[in-house]
Formats: sequence, C-alpha cells, structure tokens
Amino acid sequence: MIFLFTDFGLEGPYIGQMKAALLRTAPQVPVFDLFADAPDRRPMEAAYLLAAYVESCPVGSHFLCVVDPGVGGDRPPAALWTGGSWFVGPGNGLFELVQRRAVHAESYRIEWRPETLSASFHGRDLFAPVMGWLASGASAGEAGLVPEGMPRFPDWPDDLAAVIYQDRYGNLMTGLRYTTIARSTRLRLGGVEMEWAETFSAVPAGKPFWYGNSSGLVEIAVNGGSAANSLKAGIGSRMEII
Amino acid sequence: MIFLFTDFGLEGPYIGQMKAALLRTAPQVPVFDLFADAPDRRPMEAAYLLAAYVESCPVGSHFLCVVDPGVGGDRPPAALWTGGSWFVGPGNGLFELVQRRAVHAESYRIEWRPETLSASFHGRDLFAPVMGWLASGASAGEAGLVPEGMPRFPDWPDDLAAVIYQDRYGNLMTGLRYTTIARSTRLRLGGVEMEWAETFSAVPAGKPFWYGNSSGLVEIAVNGGSAANSLKAGIGSRMEII
Amino acid sequence: MIFLFTDFGLEGPYIGQMKAALLRTAPQVPVFDLFADAPDRRPMEAAYLLAAYVESCPVGSHFLCVVDPGVGGDRPPAALWTGGSWFVGPGNGLFELVQRRAVHAESYRIEWRPETLSASFHGRDLFAPVMGWLASGASAGEAGLVPEGMPRFPDWPDDLAAVIYQDRYGNLMTGLRYTTIARSTRLRLGGVEMEWAETFSAVPAGKPFWYGNSSGLVEIAVNGGSAANSLKAGIGSRMEII
Repeated sequence: MIFLFTDFGLEGPYIGQMKAALLRTAPQVPVFDLFADAPDRRPMEAAYLLAAYVESCPVGSHFLCVVDPGVGGDRPPAALWTGGSWFVGPGNGLFELVQRRAVHAESYRIEWRPETLSASFHGRDLFAPVMGWLASGASAGEAGLVPEGMPRFPDWPDDLAAVIYQDRYGNLMTGLRYTTIARSTRLRLGGVEMEWAETFSAVPAGKPFWYGNSSGLVEIAVNGGSAANSLKAGIGSRMEII
Repeated sequence: MIFLFTDFGLEGPYIGQMKAALLRTAPQVPVFDLFADAPDRRPMEAAYLLAAYVESCPVGSHFLCVVDPGVGGDRPPAALWTGGSWFVGPGNGLFELVQRRAVHAESYRIEWRPETLSASFHGRDLFAPVMGWLASGASAGEAGLVPEGMPRFPDWPDDLAAVIYQDRYGNLMTGLRYTTIARSTRLRLGGVEMEWAETFSAVPAGKPFWYGNSSGLVEIAVNGGSAANSLKAGIGSRMEII
Repeated sequence: MIFLFTDFGLEGPYIGQMKAALLRTAPQVPVFDLFADAPDRRPMEAAYLLAAYVESCPVGSHFLCVVDPGVGGDRPPAALWTGGSWFVGPGNGLFELVQRRAVHAESYRIEWRPETLSASFHGRDLFAPVMGWLASGASAGEAGLVPEGMPRFPDWPDDLAAVIYQDRYGNLMTGLRYTTIARSTRLRLGGVEMEWAETFSAVPAGKPFWYGNSSGLVEIAVNGGSAANSLKAGIGSRMEII
C-alpha cells in the first residue's frame, strides 16, 4: 500500500489529482492519506514526523512524500529504498531521519521526466508516476532512477526537542521518540514544566502533561483542553528537557 | 460497506491509519467517511447524529464509531448487532439511540486485545481490526466479542431539542427527527422564533427557518447566510419547541 | 474514473454519502476528489475553475459537479456529454465554460427521479445515481436523460479576470488561461502591479508575482507568503490586465 505524506492540505485539487496520477501507474495498489497537513514548507520538522509514522505503518508500505518549498529550484527529485519500503519525493532533508534510522538504505535521483512537467506540481507530474511504478514492482532502473546519494543534513539531531505537529485538539507532537527519555523526565515548553502521565484520563482537567503517543512520539496535551493554546506553542517551538 | 463516524477530524494521520488497519482485516470491503467531525468529545450529541444517519445509509452498512473522551479509562470497548449492521466503538452512550430505536439489538463487549495497544488510539489498534473481521463475515466469537449489555443512558430523551451538528455553511442540525414534529411547530433558538419551510429557495434571503434535512433531522438554516452566526448558536445549544 | 467537484467541504457527511451512492450504481469505477471546496454557492467562478481542471484530468474522466445554491428551485438537473466525458449536475451555468470550449457537446435534462428525493441533497439522491449509470456505460436514455439545451450564459466572458480559488497557502487562482496572455503582461490586484515569473524560487521572498499554475491557469502568489493576505483579495476579486 502507498501512504501520502504532504503539506498540500486536503482542500483543493492537489491530493485528488495525485491519487488519480497514482491510479494510472499503480492501479492495483491501495492508497491512504497519512498526513496532508505535514509541517507546512518545513522539511526538517516533517522529516522527524515522517520517520516516526513509518514505524506505525504496516511493514512493506511505500511513502509518497511532498513537503517541497523549493519546487522548481535545484533540490534533486529523489527516492530511497530501505529494503522493503520505497520513499519518493524531494531530496531536501525530508528523508534524512528515515535514512539515518534505516538498517539498509539506497539513495537514488529521479532521472525520468514526463512529457509535460509543471513548475509547481511535481507531486502529480513526477513523483506520483515514479512511485506508482515502484509500488507495482518496477526496478529502480525501470522507474527512471539512477543511484546517487541525496543531500544530507548531519547537523540535525537524532531527536528534535521541538513541536513538529499540532492536531485539531491542540495536542502537540514533538520530535522526541518516547523510548529515548525516561518517564521521570520533565519537559518545559512555553514556560510551563510538565510531567509524564499514562494517558488523558490519569490527569486532572486543564493540566498539561506529556505522554507517549500512538506512534511512539512524545506528545504534549492538556486533558479536556488545548495544549497549543495553554502553552502558546506551535510547530517549531523549542522545548527544554529537565 | 463500512462507514467511519469519528471526531478525529480529517486532518492528521488518524483517519488514514484507521483505514489502513481496516484494509488488513477487511481487504474486500469498501470504506467511506460518514463523519470525521462528529461532535467533539460529546458522545451524547454524537449518539443522536449517528442514529439519524444510519437511516440514510444503505441497509446492511456497518459503522466504525469513535467519539471517545474516556479512551484509556474504564468505558468498555463495545459492539452492537442490529440484525444487519454491526456497530463497533466505545460503550459510552454513543450507541444509545441506535440501540433504543433498533427492532433487534445484541450487545457485546470486545474481549480481544492486540499485542500492542496504544493508550490513546483504540480506533486504529482495537476497534478497526474487530470491525474488519465482523464486516468480513466473522462471527461474534471469532472477532473476540463476548455477549454483555453495554452501559445505558435512560435519562437521555428519545429526541434531543438541541443543536448536534454545524456544517460549513453554518446550518445547524438538531437532535429532533423531522417526523416527530408538525410543520406548524415553531422553534426558538438564540431568542429567535422560526417557522418551517420546504427549502432554502422558499424563504427570503437572511431569514432563519427550519426544515427537514436530507437525513430526516430538523435543521435550522438561513437562506444565503449562516444560522450559527445569526443565532449565535452551536453544538449543545438548546431549543424551545413552541 | 469519476471526479467530484463540489462546494460541500470535506467535513460532514456529504462527500461520503455521495460516494456511497456512486458505489451502488458504479461499483467498478474509481472515484476521486477534485474539489470539495469549489467556490461556495458561486456557479460562475466555479464554471471557470471546472473548465480549467477538466484539461488536467485524464482523457475520458467523468465529472459529478454540485455547486447549487438554487437546489430545490427551478434550475434543471442537467447532464453534458463532450464526446468522452460526462458532466452531471445543476444546469445553472456550472457547465457553461466546459460547453463553450468543447468541440462536441450534447445537453440533456435529467428526467429520472428517485423514489425519495430530498429537497436539499440532489447530489446524493439524483446526480450520483445518474452519474454512476453513465460512468458504467448506460446510454443517455437508460440513465433517464432527455435531450434538452441547458440554460446558457452568453454574457460571461471566455476568460474571467478575477480570483476564482484561494488555496491554503493563500495562492490565488484566476479565471484567465495562461495561454491567453503574454508573459510581458502585468496584472493589477488589490492596488499592486505584478509581473510574470517562472516559479516561486525565481522571485524574492515576500514579492507578489503571477505564473502559469499546474492546471493552466494564471495564478497569483507571494514567495514564502500569502497573496490573499498581502493583496487583501479573495474569490470574486477583479483584476486589471495591463
């Protein structure tokens, strides 16, 4: 199956047109929305989000990923094979954490070009057809890939002590993996210190806390309220680990 | 077919991950979004909305329902069989009106547990696999269900004279079934009295009125405007029936 | 394949119920969201948007279209055949530009009525079943159509120098086809004059410009910002061509 991971939003024609493009080269492969609201034009925060959610998707899933503020510029169109999953999208750091955490990783540059390539919608015109071929079993060469390392970002930390996603309830996902910090750890965000709790119902209403979310990330929440509003925090806000 | 009825929002990974989980136990069953914006953490209002929309879905549809503010607490994971349709979700009142209006109803508690159960996303980890098995023809026992009455809410009225849903136009659905009140009835909401009209085009622009919506509920609207704004009303606002 | 083009919004039960209705008469035909946020209750602006996006969808696609402020009034339920694609929806101008630009066009009125027709949701009850039959290969007569010209709007221009869509980034699509104006053309919107650029990365951050979007329309954008906010413009805002 193919998961879509983009910052396009569900509104507008973008997701629908990309799915229609996938249907043409991968008619037998189910397609699911993972995120259509990945961090807007922020490949770094998106990279930590993607790497975490890959872990909670079925083994062998493929990922068509577009957070691409430099579309039309000089970042390479790229693909990554991790020995079971294909990742296709811009080589702008979006796959940095997936690659770093993978046991096996092969990088490619997409050499194939469609007859007509729009300047602003490579997701539909370039990345979707290539992903469709790969998910249907084509080899790297058949899908127009050439082996080539993609740009790397060695300065990015292994875990990011910052907010990387805000959901509709105002819960704040961070770039910290739950398994990397002890439950006795305190986090400070927006001037407020928070302790760990198992889940919402273990905390008094209105109190901020942190917990391990359903995809293995440290997440900050307020029982019955919005952590984003209470802590005046959003995507990119930095935390202290105490 | 399976309909999804949740308060997750379409944003974020939640609906996509739940659909991917359904695919694994029910690969042949089409899945549709019914509501992803059911009343947020309000099982009571959601119960009236669900019961109404079940009536306008094809006979034999199944319903995976998650409005679950007590996730991780002690409400039982539950299933309901109405002699053609399965309902799976939290036993927190969400199925109260479906059960009350059903000619035939069998209640179950979900005893099965996955190897890994997240504290906050039972929709993906627990309810989706069970729904997938049931929609694919498994028996209650095969799907890990045991017969057990679910918590009931006898104080809730048969029809709720309150707003239970607001759409993007500002139209306000109520918990009153259209067939239960006469067309001569007047409704008062936000200090304004409203009369019945057949449809929008039968009313002057800007005037609030009530009508029977496409799923059999009394709905309040303003032709060419927003009833929510005009009447300063939203989910939970109570009405008077005059 | 069938594309959905509506102003329903993705929230609420409307898109899901329409897809479920399509499944019943066209179980083999894939369905994609094109726009669920077409210009709200504005058939004119929507007509230019639809005509442009038809060009970027695969040949032979069908279009179920509902932007229908007069639902329940006297606009005819209509269908249009362009020698490869069916269009089904209200005869209120929504198909005016598709029809005008088509080499071949046959207009129909939908005579068929379901047993139960809601006053407000013809998309689900009337248009979806008819589209399903047509997309599955039924003849016009078998789908309940009778040949009849639909209302025409000769005063509408061939290209509309106005904003017809605003995306989540604040980019503003216009009703001008990119091929109809020279790259030396300047556009004025919200008191600001703009020049053409190839794409975002060719323009300094913060500067408004116009370009040809991925579906062949002139679109106005601000690199790294929101054109809607910068220019205080939205759907319906008129431009000057200089």
